[in-house]
Amino acid sequence: MRFLSDASSGGVREQLFALGDIPGVLWTPEGDTTAPLPLVLLGHGGGRHKKAPEILTLARRLVTECGFAAVSVDVPAHGDRPKVEEYDRIATENQARVEAGEELAPLIAGFQALVARRTVPEWRAVLDAVRRLHHVGTGPVGYWGVSLGCGLGVPFVAAEPRVRAAVLGLGGASASAEAAARITVPVEFLVQWDDERVPRDQSLALFDALASPEKSLHVNPGRHGEIPPTELDSTLRFFRRHLGPRRS
Amino acid sequence: MRFLSDASSGGVREQLFALGDIPGVLWTPEGDTTAPLPLVLLGHGGGRHKKAPEILTLARRLVTECGFAAVSVDVPAHGDRPKVEEYDRIATENQARVEAGEELAPLIAGFQALVARRTVPEWRAVLDAVRRLHHVGTGPVGYWGVSLGCGLGVPFVAAEPRVRAAVLGLGGASASAEAAARITVPVEFLVQWDDERVPRDQSLALFDALASPEKSLHVNPGRHGEIPPTELDSTLRFFRRHLGPRRS
Repeated sequence: MRFLSDASSGGVREQLFALGDIPGVLWTPEGDTTAPLPLVLLGHGGGRHKKAPEILTLARRLVTECGFAAVSVDVPAHGDRPKVEEYDRIATENQARVEAGEELAPLIAGFQALVARRTVPEWRAVLDAVRRLHHVGTGPVGYWGVSLGCGLGVPFVAAEPRVRAAVLGLGGASASAEAAARITVPVEFLVQWDDERVPRDQSLALFDALASPEKSLHVNPGRHGEIPPTELDSTLRFFRRHLGPRRS
Repeated sequence: MRFLSDASSGGVREQLFALGDIPGVLWTPEGDTTAPLPLVLLGHGGGRHKKAPEILTLARRLVTECGFAAVSVDVPAHGDRPKVEEYDRIATENQARVEAGEELAPLIAGFQALVARRTVPEWRAVLDAVRRLHHVGTGPVGYWGVSLGCGLGVPFVAAEPRVRAAVLGLGGASASAEAAARITVPVEFLVQWDDERVPRDQSLALFDALASPEKSLHVNPGRHGEIPPTELDSTLRFFRRHLGPRRS
């Protein structure tokens, strides 16, 4: 793990790093931390990156309002990572199939399952590395990811016993129902009622497939990208409840 | 409006009253209030009453944590009110019809629609009377009711322009979809994923029917009576957000 930068502002320390060829960013409370800290891994959406505005906002609030650490890395072919020829080829093929009348959701799901085969081991390695840092340590781990972050997050949470709680959503059952059935930690699951990309019944089927005894579905009106700000507050409460004591 | 008792404990003043033949209870902050107060009308469930434990808990928290007033009255044939022969006859008939293989949900819905014809005008009269009290005044009004409290609450909220926000749930679209389509205030809607009394698709259809631009569906695992305690916290935040400033 190589650190590329180290800067602090408004109570938040931000460190860019590279773990092998994975570019990432780690946020922790400024100054001496009382490690071990709860750590939340944030999975960005499709076409987004590790420092997209919604990721930054959530990360800063996790640090300042909860006293947690947060980490995010670029998904292959996103952010600072090179294109992946195979992904480009599939995207072009899918585009043609949608134009020929095929349903979009199963194609997205199939693509996300393919990407997850790379991101699951990558993210596990990121956890290993970050939790070895003195100012983070081996505290409880959470996962947050919607849309692509859900498609990749479901197999990750299913595979990773260190994750104790997850916020997921804007994703359907097509790709992930089987992995979802292996998730047993508390989950808060977000659905947009007028999602133009994920059919309602697919969203509800993915929530239904989660094996977690404690899971909560939050549905709001609006399209894929229009999760209301109240859900961000709810996300922070959820992680505070499951990963650690309230610090603010 | 006749007051029958007046007692205070733990910061909460509780007054039993009768409005005509409607028995009710009003909760307000102990001591001088800074009226007008936000007021939440609480509709109890089937076979329950105005001082059922879940109503008392919610009322006391609305008073102590939000500084609001809360009021609840017995639904006809519940609590301190006499039996209604027509209701008994219908209940007996419905019992026989269910034993003969009919679906339960539409029968419950039909019954609730019948009771609502009495409770809607009763509850509006209760609002009139309570808001004339000096220690309450004409502040913003909210409504909370699940199960029977939803079946009766949907037509009430649809008919009553003073209600600015409502928590509803554990109810289906059979009886109330038409009234729900006239509700435009913010709604938090609770569904139990394993509800043995209300089919899932009926619950989701009722949420869908609400015309409110701001509405949020919260689904949790468990049976009809098993709403988790986190939802009570969420209810208090919802009313605080929509009816008044935070006071605690």
